[in-house]
Amino acid sequence: MFFFADQATNVYDNGQGVVRTVLGYDGHMMIVRNDFETGAIGALHSHPHEQTTYVQSGRFLFTIDGEEHEVKAGDALHKNPNVVHGCKCLEAGTLIDIFTPIREDFLPEQQ
Amino acid sequence: MFFFADQATNVYDNGQGVVRTVLGYDGHMMIVRNDFETGAIGALHSHPHEQTTYVQSGRFLFTIDGEEHEVKAGDALHKNPNVVHGCKCLEAGTLIDIFTPIREDFLPEQQ
Repeated sequence: MFFFADQATNVYDNGQGVVRTVLGYDGHMMIVRNDFETGAIGALHSHPHEQTTYVQSGRFLFTIDGEEHEVKAGDALHKNPNVVHGCKCLEAGTLIDIFTPIREDFLPEQQ
Repeated sequence: MFFFADQATNVYDNGQGVVRTVLGYDGHMMIVRNDFETGAIGALHSHPHEQTTYVQSGRFLFTIDGEEHEVKAGDALHKNPNVVHGCKCLEAGTLIDIFTPIREDFLPEQQ
């Protein structure tokens, strides 16, 4: 139930400016850090998991269900199950994503 | 579904070094920022909600179900429903807490 960032081993670099690190998961929740370079894209997608995103740093232009908003450090967002969402990173930064239930497709044996 | 930190109005100062700000909630998730002064205590407590905590900054000594760990910026924690947990702030900082389901006791009309 304690997840230490310097022990995280589940890291995926998409090669296009986004590095995803699964910090941990337990019960019905998973917490994931996504580090974005300026200009990197989180492509529009959807999934049945409910998701809350916290903007730790940087600036991002999000699109959720066709609605666009620019967010900055300290802001947060929520995505309902199956809603189409994506983002563009306007200024390099980090998003903290929490999913319920856990994203089994993010577990190492699924990749 | 967009929660802007500078528009947050649901703020509770416990007068003992902890300020809680509900950033937002939707569906089955709520996200809350807790700003701690050095030495402030999050008293041992429990609740039926599942909780994931992200350490944005500072250092904290957490106790979860009798197990103690010191955590720092970038670390995360998970608390199962009804587990007894609390913390002491060793170095001023901020915790981001995500609950599922939402903490109805944190809504303004409940205080």
